[in-house]
Amino acid sequence: MRSETPREKQQRHRRRGPDADGSASYHRGDAGANGRELVLGLSSGTSMDGIDAALVDFGEGEAGGIDLLAFRMQEYPQALRSALASCCRGGDCADVARLDVAIGEAFAAAALDLLASAGREPADVCCIGSHGQTLIHLPQAEEIGGMRVSATLQIGELSVIAERTGITTVGDFRTRDMAAGGQGAPLVPILDHEMLTHPERGRVALNLGGIANVTGLPAGGSLADLLAFDTGPANVLLDAAARRHQLEGGIDEGGALAMTGAPDPELLETLMTHPFFERRPPKSADLRIVSGDYAERCWEEAADLSTADLLRTLAELTARTVADGIDRYISPRQAIDEIVVSGGGAHNAAVMSAVRTHLPDARVLTVDQVSSIPGDAKEAVLFAYLGHLALAGRCGNVPSATGAERAAVLGKIVPGW
Amino acid sequence: MRSETPREKQQRHRRRGPDADGSASYHRGDAGANGRELVLGLSSGTSMDGIDAALVDFGEGEAGGIDLLAFRMQEYPQALRSALASCCRGGDCADVARLDVAIGEAFAAAALDLLASAGREPADVCCIGSHGQTLIHLPQAEEIGGMRVSATLQIGELSVIAERTGITTVGDFRTRDMAAGGQGAPLVPILDHEMLTHPERGRVALNLGGIANVTGLPAGGSLADLLAFDTGPANVLLDAAARRHQLEGGIDEGGALAMTGAPDPELLETLMTHPFFERRPPKSADLRIVSGDYAERCWEEAADLSTADLLRTLAELTARTVADGIDRYISPRQAIDEIVVSGGGAHNAAVMSAVRTHLPDARVLTVDQVSSIPGDAKEAVLFAYLGHLALAGRCGNVPSATGAERAAVLGKIVPGW
Repeated sequence: MRSETPREKQQRHRRRGPDADGSASYHRGDAGANGRELVLGLSSGTSMDGIDAALVDFGEGEAGGIDLLAFRMQEYPQALRSALASCCRGGDCADVARLDVAIGEAFAAAALDLLASAGREPADVCCIGSHGQTLIHLPQAEEIGGMRVSATLQIGELSVIAERTGITTVGDFRTRDMAAGGQGAPLVPILDHEMLTHPERGRVALNLGGIANVTGLPAGGSLADLLAFDTGPANVLLDAAARRHQLEGGIDEGGALAMTGAPDPELLETLMTHPFFERRPPKSADLRIVSGDYAERCWEEAADLSTADLLRTLAELTARTVADGIDRYISPRQAIDEIVVSGGGAHNAAVMSAVRTHLPDARVLTVDQVSSIPGDAKEAVLFAYLGHLALAGRCGNVPSATGAERAAVLGKIVPGW
Repeated sequence: MRSETPREKQQRHRRRGPDADGSASYHRGDAGANGRELVLGLSSGTSMDGIDAALVDFGEGEAGGIDLLAFRMQEYPQALRSALASCCRGGDCADVARLDVAIGEAFAAAALDLLASAGREPADVCCIGSHGQTLIHLPQAEEIGGMRVSATLQIGELSVIAERTGITTVGDFRTRDMAAGGQGAPLVPILDHEMLTHPERGRVALNLGGIANVTGLPAGGSLADLLAFDTGPANVLLDAAARRHQLEGGIDEGGALAMTGAPDPELLETLMTHPFFERRPPKSADLRIVSGDYAERCWEEAADLSTADLLRTLAELTARTVADGIDRYISPRQAIDEIVVSGGGAHNAAVMSAVRTHLPDARVLTVDQVSSIPGDAKEAVLFAYLGHLALAGRCGNVPSATGAERAAVLGKIVPGW
């Protein structure tokens, strides 16, 4: 009798689908015993929709030693989401301070919920790695108080997470890279390298979160060979359009409506004029790319378009700026056999179809097809990985990706009980 | 020939007085070699005037094992001070994020300046403990995003300090105590206990910073015997009055002008009605105690008073609220032989004289008279001590002082190079 492969075993234990409370979850029943190093990763993206929580084993798993034991996405309560939006629009110091604690409480609850659903105790976990919630990302230096500084602000108080869970908590990863002269983003390349570098195939990892980013992974390449950067908006514009047009659930599920529309060439040309797209890497996108005049102009010019045509245009914008970035900066450096897609945008048929059209020479796959880590879980796995690296005293940023002067241990460490 | 005592040796090497650039400094020429644990403490008070930096040896010094090797106070550049003030009045997320970095740069520069002036290398220092700059302190729970939370916001990015100096940096100490249910203040009791507990004399440590706080130290008492709390405004109101009346340097140096005035009984009665003074410990004061209606009412009612009378009234307010707090909550628990004063207010003759009048049964001393740590350096020494404790995995808060449910290791740890 043929014995079960690890991959088959994992699939047998996998259970996916919406829970009773509407949150999506994934966990394995046989989550191991000794000799493992369990780390819990927490993240929330620029879309501010909720918290991804992943329980990861860095001890002896597959996928470059990374094994996902459980994953869960928990939506923010509406009141918290509204408070976040209003803080970004013009909150003051008191709002920032209080939301930092409130988001910390929500992150801590998400961590404890994940552990409970996976049948684990906090004592089983080595550390939590938490990205927090970005309020603002300002990688371009600007003047304040007589100095020119770049800055970024992730909230979700680490002390609250450590105190509620008792688990040593590492987070606020972007500030150190920026202090070392980097853009503080993208941080995913170190995980892309670990998970997705292939001995013979040249790959590009494409993450379609609120913002889209790409990592070039030459076949058998080392960390020093990486080039990675943000290419521009992805779901953040698509979701904003869906909310403006009051689609059910505030989202065009699977890109179904977009697939019935056609891209509008004029709007597309207007949107393609954003100076961010012309900038050379290293570059990281800032939510203001869609919160200011740019988005306003988009909604104005789209006033006569159907919702479907608007959504299809934004899907096309995402794919074209991704393809432009890859063609200009990655193709000259490496062969590209495969594009490996993760993030919410991987579920959007209109975006995926446009990506395939604009990158005809590569196979476009989702990360689930080439690794045991589902694409939706990748961000949370990343922050678990960065927590794991920090506690081991290992560097987390890739200078060729962020533009930092040196690799650094990222994050602030808050002891558990 | 009698050999020099350690205390005499220290005094011989002590050099005090203003530097060429106007900053006050203190350092010892013979700062030691091996077997020592040097920690650099950084703090800035609620008055937002500048950065105190102290180099402390926790290895084998006097004063409960605490030996101050160098101290320096560096004023904020005017542009930075203005940016801080405007951020507190109504800055948004971007201002908070950028100022966090700008203040971090200023703190890092202060640390490196202190080391240079003391003839030390960063490699000589085990860690930096940094309080940062408080933007807001909100110990009373209020609603945000559907939750009730208390919060506090200290800026001065730890990642910037660690990256510029290469030294492991610990800071943001207050958030953990608040996460454990405390007020996040006062934090000084653990240092008061270590430095000032006397085997036979009952003492009260009185710190006259922007806010005044007291720590009761029974003779030979343990940490569990401590009661400590904020009593109300000290220099923050006095300095605000000095600036409003455009005194030279924005300060009534030594309280000289206040000494020529007389307290106004009506204004004093009005000011004494603030509900904070009636609250029972644990309690910590919030800058809003003087930034809102309370201060406005003070300036209105004082419109007909001379500057000297206004200052004398505020000195009297400070002393009366300190004495009330001690009489009500500390005297019933312990004998009080000595009041040991530190902080800028110790140099204000009007405040010190009023404290003596209202506490006639105790000897009122400055901390310099009973320890080798000058009173002006005490805050910076405290944050060095909290950094030292965190790295040793030792708790930093005193639950009976802050109201926390438990003692916790305070602070976030950012690795050096």
